[in-house]
Amino acid sequence: MAVTRRTSRDIRSESRLDVMHALLSAGAASRGELARATGLSTATVATVVSDLLSGGIVTEAGLTNGRVGRPTTTLRLNGDRGRIVGIDVAETYIRAVVFDAALDELASAEVAVDEHHGEADYVVARLARALEDALERAGAARDDVLGVGVSLPGGTQRPAEVSVVVPNAAWRHLDRLRERIGLPVVVDNPLKAIATAELWSGEGRRHSSMITLNLGTGVGAGIVLEGAILRGARNFAGEWGHSLLALDGRRCRCGRAGCVEAYVGAAGIQRTLAGIAPEHPLASEPMQREFIGALASALARPSPDPAVTETLERTARYLGAAIADLVAIVDPEMITLTGWTVWALGDHLVPAVRRRVVEEAPGDAAAELAIEVSTVRGNPVATGIATIALERFLGDMGLLTSRVPTAL
Amino acid sequence: MAVTRRTSRDIRSESRLDVMHALLSAGAASRGELARATGLSTATVATVVSDLLSGGIVTEAGLTNGRVGRPTTTLRLNGDRGRIVGIDVAETYIRAVVFDAALDELASAEVAVDEHHGEADYVVARLARALEDALERAGAARDDVLGVGVSLPGGTQRPAEVSVVVPNAAWRHLDRLRERIGLPVVVDNPLKAIATAELWSGEGRRHSSMITLNLGTGVGAGIVLEGAILRGARNFAGEWGHSLLALDGRRCRCGRAGCVEAYVGAAGIQRTLAGIAPEHPLASEPMQREFIGALASALARPSPDPAVTETLERTARYLGAAIADLVAIVDPEMITLTGWTVWALGDHLVPAVRRRVVEEAPGDAAAELAIEVSTVRGNPVATGIATIALERFLGDMGLLTSRVPTAL
Repeated sequence: MAVTRRTSRDIRSESRLDVMHALLSAGAASRGELARATGLSTATVATVVSDLLSGGIVTEAGLTNGRVGRPTTTLRLNGDRGRIVGIDVAETYIRAVVFDAALDELASAEVAVDEHHGEADYVVARLARALEDALERAGAARDDVLGVGVSLPGGTQRPAEVSVVVPNAAWRHLDRLRERIGLPVVVDNPLKAIATAELWSGEGRRHSSMITLNLGTGVGAGIVLEGAILRGARNFAGEWGHSLLALDGRRCRCGRAGCVEAYVGAAGIQRTLAGIAPEHPLASEPMQREFIGALASALARPSPDPAVTETLERTARYLGAAIADLVAIVDPEMITLTGWTVWALGDHLVPAVRRRVVEEAPGDAAAELAIEVSTVRGNPVATGIATIALERFLGDMGLLTSRVPTAL
Repeated sequence: MAVTRRTSRDIRSESRLDVMHALLSAGAASRGELARATGLSTATVATVVSDLLSGGIVTEAGLTNGRVGRPTTTLRLNGDRGRIVGIDVAETYIRAVVFDAALDELASAEVAVDEHHGEADYVVARLARALEDALERAGAARDDVLGVGVSLPGGTQRPAEVSVVVPNAAWRHLDRLRERIGLPVVVDNPLKAIATAELWSGEGRRHSSMITLNLGTGVGAGIVLEGAILRGARNFAGEWGHSLLALDGRRCRCGRAGCVEAYVGAAGIQRTLAGIAPEHPLASEPMQREFIGALASALARPSPDPAVTETLERTARYLGAAIADLVAIVDPEMITLTGWTVWALGDHLVPAVRRRVVEEAPGDAAAELAIEVSTVRGNPVATGIATIALERFLGDMGLLTSRVPTAL
């Protein structure tokens, strides 16, 4: 693949994205406020707003009387333009979230999936069920749907490994998925989804480079550089969870030994506790989310038991070292953390992780690095993949030329 | 820092770079050939060539008679436009290379530096000496010099570490360096230099993403994404040599334990041999380059001794695992290898490394990844830093707007 050539059309497209991001952030704004927020000229903002008004993407929210001069028109994203659905396909559940076209959440539905039931037809049927339930709860007709985004993890297993996980079955049969849904579908992986959510709805807009780390069962990084998602040559970029923390270390479910995920994924944290105190009641908790929740409760007690405290400290050390590697290689302006492990353990974990990263990163690279819990609310994977579907819709309308996944 | 906004001026600048890269690659070319090589329209090529001819950057090399029609003008980079110097400041030597403005090497000079003699004035004096010697050998007057690039490694040491290395002293006194040289100076680190060399003179032009690994005493990665060098928020990007291979592993000279460099830097390779066969004569070779050269000679024998073979296998395993981490995080289209360890050991090392990377990278991410020895000849650090100085000169002329380091 040759270097992508940028054209003046791309610049116009990026200005439209900037204006949409500013409206998403502000809720409602005048053209003058948009010019100040985006750094674009008032002439450019006027042109861009005109494009977006014609497409029905933006609407006039009313008139505001300023202190001087004539009233100004306030603009906002036009939620009524249609509906966008984001579907988070995980290993034990599929969650569909319906948004309006201003990315406000309207309704959601979740169905359980049996992770040992890996046929594509089963997964596709469960996914279609989640989608239909969510649309019904949102009172949305299929004709209202501008696009459906489907987040599928997977692709990281060694070819030699035979274990089948639910998302992998779906990856192999995207044609059936598209056919069954019968609506415009875009498919991407959860790392690209969380990075897109951060870019549109979180800290990404204010930074030229940023990494969002997702910590749950799986572990990964969404990387934003120069305002765009780093996809990589084969869409593998951000698979930091399967980079090495410890040569010849713990066996990871991907097949490699010593991966970051084997230490800071939920199951990895439980292995750390089991190594410290094999007989600890939490070491045998069969459900990962329950385990992380119970760990958080134990840490919140006035005098937590030492095995739990030690588990947190080791986890902070592992995570700090692994984040320091991202600083050494990518050197982002900011790092945000998301995922259910972070929501449960963040208050205890993040301060300790910050200290470790400063110690472990090259020289003073991390001295001023911000490491914060993401401000994106709700399900960031569903929000992000819905946003990618919105980008694709805008691309199909001719309003955007870049940042839209081309392969899937 | 906010997201950099691209303008139509940046697009013009990138078209100029594309044309210069194509001329550098072809040696000489007509406007039509340039349009085909770059993918630019003939109208754009005509405008760009006109800009570059006015600036004296490009010159007409003569007329070529085609089979049909009137003769076409052949263009080439104008080497006589002036001289560019690239200076590679290493820990035991400083090498200055004089290039003409078409990046053809004219002459070079090297001075030894005492790595225990770390005062900035000493380093600056030695650097000035190398520069003057090289200019004299090239028969170049100071007035001919368009720019001087100085590559300084360093910046990766833990603040707590007290060891002083030569380049660090220079980093702290860039003002003295500029004053003593008295010519336009640009300073950057060797990772950015090798990436720039790859981008202008190697494989970088043909790929939208590429990583060049430098293996010698130090180890690092030059990362090119979308045709531009990844610098990072604090110019630390690419310090892959100080990312983790093994938690609690070998102590690295940067102060961290388990860094990639402690395993695949020249001293790290020697430690591997010493671990396998402590009494092996090569394990006590005091000079790193001699050690690597002797290791290559030993491997080239019909039946190499087992300790040497095992050292190579373990090094391939370490390097393969560390490259797989770059694939997991960045997922480039191509990886090139450079540096004196690669020139000496490449024939033995690279095939084994390729196999390891395919095994260790996530899923099939590395199945089609090209891993090759760099085609950049000579000293890639000096070539690259000279190229950065040329970019800066073109920037000062108003011909380039991007890719030029802004901070240093």
